[in-house]
Amino acid sequence: MNALVLQSDFGHADGAVSAMYGVALGVSPALRICDLTHEIPQYDIWEASYRLIQTVSYWPEGTVFVSVVDPGVGSDRRSIVAKTANGRYVVTPDNGTLTHVRRMMGLSEVRIIDEEVNRLEGSSESYTFYGRDVYAYTGARLAAGVIDFEGVGPSVDVESLVELPVVEATLDGERVCGTIDVLDVRFGSLWTNISRELFARLGVDYGQRVEVTIENGTRVLYKNFLTYARSFADVYVGEALVYVNSLDCMAVAINQGSFAAAYGIGTGVNWTIALRRAPRLVYE
Amino acid sequence: MNALVLQSDFGHADGAVSAMYGVALGVSPALRICDLTHEIPQYDIWEASYRLIQTVSYWPEGTVFVSVVDPGVGSDRRSIVAKTANGRYVVTPDNGTLTHVRRMMGLSEVRIIDEEVNRLEGSSESYTFYGRDVYAYTGARLAAGVIDFEGVGPSVDVESLVELPVVEATLDGERVCGTIDVLDVRFGSLWTNISRELFARLGVDYGQRVEVTIENGTRVLYKNFLTYARSFADVYVGEALVYVNSLDCMAVAINQGSFAAAYGIGTGVNWTIALRRAPRLVYE
Amino acid sequence: MNALVLQSDFGHADGAVSAMYGVALGVSPALRICDLTHEIPQYDIWEASYRLIQTVSYWPEGTVFVSVVDPGVGSDRRSIVAKTANGRYVVTPDNGTLTHVRRMMGLSEVRIIDEEVNRLEGSSESYTFYGRDVYAYTGARLAAGVIDFEGVGPSVDVESLVELPVVEATLDGERVCGTIDVLDVRFGSLWTNISRELFARLGVDYGQRVEVTIENGTRVLYKNFLTYARSFADVYVGEALVYVNSLDCMAVAINQGSFAAAYGIGTGVNWTIALRRAPRLVYE
Repeated sequence: MNALVLQSDFGHADGAVSAMYGVALGVSPALRICDLTHEIPQYDIWEASYRLIQTVSYWPEGTVFVSVVDPGVGSDRRSIVAKTANGRYVVTPDNGTLTHVRRMMGLSEVRIIDEEVNRLEGSSESYTFYGRDVYAYTGARLAAGVIDFEGVGPSVDVESLVELPVVEATLDGERVCGTIDVLDVRFGSLWTNISRELFARLGVDYGQRVEVTIENGTRVLYKNFLTYARSFADVYVGEALVYVNSLDCMAVAINQGSFAAAYGIGTGVNWTIALRRAPRLVYE
Repeated sequence: MNALVLQSDFGHADGAVSAMYGVALGVSPALRICDLTHEIPQYDIWEASYRLIQTVSYWPEGTVFVSVVDPGVGSDRRSIVAKTANGRYVVTPDNGTLTHVRRMMGLSEVRIIDEEVNRLEGSSESYTFYGRDVYAYTGARLAAGVIDFEGVGPSVDVESLVELPVVEATLDGERVCGTIDVLDVRFGSLWTNISRELFARLGVDYGQRVEVTIENGTRVLYKNFLTYARSFADVYVGEALVYVNSLDCMAVAINQGSFAAAYGIGTGVNWTIALRRAPRLVYE
Repeated sequence: MNALVLQSDFGHADGAVSAMYGVALGVSPALRICDLTHEIPQYDIWEASYRLIQTVSYWPEGTVFVSVVDPGVGSDRRSIVAKTANGRYVVTPDNGTLTHVRRMMGLSEVRIIDEEVNRLEGSSESYTFYGRDVYAYTGARLAAGVIDFEGVGPSVDVESLVELPVVEATLDGERVCGTIDVLDVRFGSLWTNISRELFARLGVDYGQRVEVTIENGTRVLYKNFLTYARSFADVYVGEALVYVNSLDCMAVAINQGSFAAAYGIGTGVNWTIALRRAPRLVYE
């Protein structure tokens, strides 16, 4: 039996997540159910997509994820289960939630949920809680082996999935340019889409300095020379740094402070960041 | 072995919930423990009662709920375990927490916790943490089968339970009138006590318009014509709607906005809402 | 198999905690994983230490705790596993997190984590997520019995551990003096380091009054006569009281109010509190 991992934008203040747990346990009392997070900002499909890529591969093969950030609930958006190239499953509305997983991990097959079969018996006339009545229920059946992947419903072309627009990081002369994908919420660090491999082509070593430029559209919000540090412990408390985050991408932070709050930095494709080797400073 | 599901107003910031988990696992290492929510507003018995009715029936028969919203801890309020008509259990102080479950689901029997038997051995001289020392402990023993329901303590009359005042929704000519029971916290939707069945007697179909009037005491805070929609996807982003919520009651929301925040709406018996078929608008 | 209990300052908004869960389940799919709290204020080692002493003894013997509040991640601070005198384990950076457990519960042995053996295979070149790559992984291996305590790494002297400064409560004539160690966050109560035993030497009985003086450095912030109550139910709503908290220490609160917010009280060794028997009031 595989684990079932739930993600949503429901928060924990009401009983919504608990109802999903109950439905899943009703499918199989032995099922293991855990959370990814339920604090995705409401309707923020991008962040749901990012939190999946951040965690899916750290769970065992066969783990079934259910992600319910579903602004189109009740519309004709499709309900799907995707199998990743490395053998995890994601149950989700087809609304872009799989953008990062598909690009960075790959999907081997996608199936549409057949709600004639995979819907909680006697679920009410309410059309607003697919998370409980369809997604948690179907995910639990798949994780518990009540159905196999074929039992989800008919296969569809992976190419048919809805995708959010993504900007690729680029090497542009002596600069790598990318976007600020997401914040490490609690610590205020900026996580970029610039991979360690791409940054490595600048030839900057730990302890050397990097020129960091952050722009929102055409407005420069931050430009400074920061140490490329192995970890926070390599700089002073309160000092900013460039480092490799836990997803092997480049990140910017203030040691024991919040970079995002300090400079009013946000996320998304309009928030761009450029890194280059810092110039030699010559005082004359 | 049955699941144990915990609810409280403790939050997650300190170790209180974790201590309850530890005590329950000490009763039986194989026990499955889950949460309903621990974010009930402090001392808010009404909301504790509502979150139970929102979730209890989605959990398997035999599930044991522990609800600790206990402003009278240390007083002579009774500690009880109720068995619902459909075979779930709720461990709670007798302070009104069972109001909705009793009215909407029914209770088949109630027993008072005999603390001579059902109290954590060596629990300290502190009288402030019944949730850990009595409720989690007793709930775990019941869920794990260490005691049966009779082992909780002596039976008492269901009629003797403390009840919060509840106002029933009514059909009044061509209007259904009810109260705003609770918010869907994260999304700012209003959940009323008007059932879908009662509303159906107005004969309004999906897509037709409803006149919604919201009052706090004698003050009108909102009056407008809204679409009765199957789900959020049937209206524009930013548009308000009337819909059936996941408890089969009527609800009011703004698609991807917060109705409660937009109009300053609260909950409780002083917050009344009336729904009627919208008039035909004739421009002359 | 023993339970694994996680604590951190990561919050739940991103995927960090979930990645730790996944890694732990990868060690053993049958492992039981629970949370202490993930809402420790960032970098607040003191509070991490306090939350451990608040809960560890309520979990069964053999339980493995992982506490990741790690401002020095990536520095040469040691990574250790401590065995408490009563047979629980704590996996943590050696930064003071064990201060209260060591003093109040005692440690029987401490071992340094040998990262050659106890590090997630293929964990990235990132040096910022020891919680996932080393602590959760090692804790899971220990809880699941993949390694025994000797398998953690070499033993070190308990005396060599980093300790936070602690001030002991004292009996000073007819006053007991101590510090405000922590808040009961959600209810705003003050938890002091004055044990019930020490306070008992004043000979104050339930229902009698206590003079409470709270100072921050040399500034008096609060001085008043409060009832020593068995529990909140013994005083009026809105009335302040002195009581024994769930850790058997003296605490101060307002019944259904927040004492900390009402008087702007904080925590730490600069926040001192004195309790003495209240004088007899004679109106002439």
